[in-house]
Amino acid sequence: MLKIESIDQNQFSTIIEERTSRDSETYEVIDERVKNIINSIRDRGDAAVFDYIEQLDGAKLDNLFVTEEEINQAFEQVDDELIDILQEARHNIDNYHRNQSEKSWYTNDGPGIWLGQQVTPIERVGVYVPGGKAAYPSTVLMNVVPAKVAGVESITVTTPVQADGKVNPNTLVAASIAGADQILKVGGAHGIATLAYGTESVNKVYKIVGPGNAYVARAKKFVFGDVDIDMIAGPSEVCVIADDQAEPKLIAADLLAQAEHDELASSILVTTSKRIANEVQQEVETQTKNLSRKEILDVSITKQGRIYLVDDLENAFEFVNELAPEHLEVLVEQPFEQLPKIKNAGAIFLGSYSPEPLGDYFAGPNHTLPTNGTAKFSSPLGVYDFQKKSSVIYYDKQSLEQVNQKIQKFAEAEGLDAHAASIRKRFE
Amino acid sequence: MLKIESIDQNQFSTIIEERTSRDSETYEVIDERVKNIINSIRDRGDAAVFDYIEQLDGAKLDNLFVTEEEINQAFEQVDDELIDILQEARHNIDNYHRNQSEKSWYTNDGPGIWLGQQVTPIERVGVYVPGGKAAYPSTVLMNVVPAKVAGVESITVTTPVQADGKVNPNTLVAASIAGADQILKVGGAHGIATLAYGTESVNKVYKIVGPGNAYVARAKKFVFGDVDIDMIAGPSEVCVIADDQAEPKLIAADLLAQAEHDELASSILVTTSKRIANEVQQEVETQTKNLSRKEILDVSITKQGRIYLVDDLENAFEFVNELAPEHLEVLVEQPFEQLPKIKNAGAIFLGSYSPEPLGDYFAGPNHTLPTNGTAKFSSPLGVYDFQKKSSVIYYDKQSLEQVNQKIQKFAEAEGLDAHAASIRKRFE
Repeated sequence: MLKIESIDQNQFSTIIEERTSRDSETYEVIDERVKNIINSIRDRGDAAVFDYIEQLDGAKLDNLFVTEEEINQAFEQVDDELIDILQEARHNIDNYHRNQSEKSWYTNDGPGIWLGQQVTPIERVGVYVPGGKAAYPSTVLMNVVPAKVAGVESITVTTPVQADGKVNPNTLVAASIAGADQILKVGGAHGIATLAYGTESVNKVYKIVGPGNAYVARAKKFVFGDVDIDMIAGPSEVCVIADDQAEPKLIAADLLAQAEHDELASSILVTTSKRIANEVQQEVETQTKNLSRKEILDVSITKQGRIYLVDDLENAFEFVNELAPEHLEVLVEQPFEQLPKIKNAGAIFLGSYSPEPLGDYFAGPNHTLPTNGTAKFSSPLGVYDFQKKSSVIYYDKQSLEQVNQKIQKFAEAEGLDAHAASIRKRFE
Repeated sequence: MLKIESIDQNQFSTIIEERTSRDSETYEVIDERVKNIINSIRDRGDAAVFDYIEQLDGAKLDNLFVTEEEINQAFEQVDDELIDILQEARHNIDNYHRNQSEKSWYTNDGPGIWLGQQVTPIERVGVYVPGGKAAYPSTVLMNVVPAKVAGVESITVTTPVQADGKVNPNTLVAASIAGADQILKVGGAHGIATLAYGTESVNKVYKIVGPGNAYVARAKKFVFGDVDIDMIAGPSEVCVIADDQAEPKLIAADLLAQAEHDELASSILVTTSKRIANEVQQEVETQTKNLSRKEILDVSITKQGRIYLVDDLENAFEFVNELAPEHLEVLVEQPFEQLPKIKNAGAIFLGSYSPEPLGDYFAGPNHTLPTNGTAKFSSPLGVYDFQKKSSVIYYDKQSLEQVNQKIQKFAEAEGLDAHAASIRKRFE
């Protein structure tokens, strides 16, 4: 049963602290194994990678890369209709993300002074794609397409190999449609180590993105610093804000869509209406019966789900900004009018016909979003995650001469006389 | 003596791997103390902060905040000329960074479909400023001004208090000129914990930036996840690319300006000219004699400094892109023409009158830059570090109906039938 709680402003921060408190779980056993895997691959390269694949995935390979032929086979295996849908989704994702692409710029403030910012793509990027049940083709598109739009020269997808030496055909088709440059059959911590340090046959990358199990997440943490990584995502969340105009049946369906991800997924309704609260509670019970992932739903709805009753819409938005949810559905009259009130949310869905699954698959914005309150300081995965900036400074002689004394004075105030000398020597 | 090495392309990656290999130093003693500090402050709030200040800084305070009066006193203590220079530097930094500010955008692709990206500032930010000799007012400006330009509502500067209960006046003046909203007298790991978790008197922040000693760096690592942090910077570096037109005297001065920072600072010349290499080597010896930080210079020049002789300019840029230096000075004929060759560098200084200290203090671009090869995947500190994005999605009924079947099919292919139901229920 989805619990209902009436809350007031004084309780907001306590409730949210409890909801978002991190488990300080330790991963001693996993960490020990992950470190060994990373060190062996750094020492022994390909030989170690082949060994781990045999040992952990049960496959004997003689080539780490998926071949052209295997990709063609995958296209034959996957339903043509799904291929078309993937292509349309790729188009929409590409279209949206092009708006994020940054350009280099220069300013010319006064004669003889040029300042600017040169924007360049990260040269080589790795995308981790989970195997098994979590092999979501939408995730492949959402991670590869922004890197492609950013102009990354080399995108390497890596994904676990099955014991028969093959890779999930949906993953292959999605990676190919998204424009990956090569696909590796290396999952788990060995996949991350291979991307981060390279081997005889694999070029190392400078950044690794994409979700994975605990081994993958810990391996990403270890290689961070040597390469960049994306944020390690927590369980998925939806928060629906509803007034008394909203449709309980749709709210319930959207809460359940989130809850089916896993037992830790969190589905929250914040509403000003007691009637809506009661009807949604009832609808969730009813709709659950017709869904296939009932066991997961029961646990996540009971443990993580909640209906919060608040006094008014102002309070609702204050609560939401404190919560900073991954997905926020705004099911109130005049949803556009609410946008300026929203400070912290990964993705915002406006109105009754913009349910969260539209964003997961199809509309174009990225579905890799900040979870667990991190929308207070971070952003959806985007083109900006695959570009970087260099400042550019040019002064001519006269321009530097004009500020010569000031810079020397500043440098001396900081006790750095070689800094002052570097300026002074230009005018001796 | 600054060593000269002739190198060819095959050696580039080995040389750079050696230069940028991270020390896997452990910090057991520091970590233990830092964890205790963080836990006490989370448990006991202000009381713990006051205790640590007494114990570690030797000051007995009854208020953690710098008062208006103390700021006014600082303005009286600091040289008026320096105040003017700080104000002019602030103006230049503000001016440059305004170009980085991102705007929200919306697209309207087809009737009934609105997609966008809402850009908002991080609400509350903390800036750590070291005390003692490393209390650089330039660092205060470079960290506070971009947050201000981003529109951060509340910027809290924190810096160590002296035993007499006072704070470095240069820091106070710079923080006030930069526009900090409040200044705390809390240094070290206790400063970071106070910002990250808040106390009765201090509001917690969502992101912490700024340099610090090992305690500060480790504390930032521990609180990361609960709040965001900037990158933990390594020792400073300059790389000068010079052809045979360059002035050895200026190159030497610029290498020394970098080397004076500390014994681990690295100063590299990459040149195509044997004559330049020899003359720079000689000039470094000569100029060192007249500088005050001779002991530091001797160590950093001998241990970290190097002149690399390469065959041609193509090789020079290839080496530099592999090195990804924090600062890159381009002292060759037609420096602008070289920009497209530069893929990885924190800041690029073009021509003979754009020495690195110009960027440290005055020109406007940020001096907080990626070190130790991380320019391959990261950027200077900027306004973008204090802004975040939310995706915005709106479909009307007709637009969703058109893609209804496709999204359901996609969701079912991923085994998520509650996702499919959330779409389907809208058309039942």
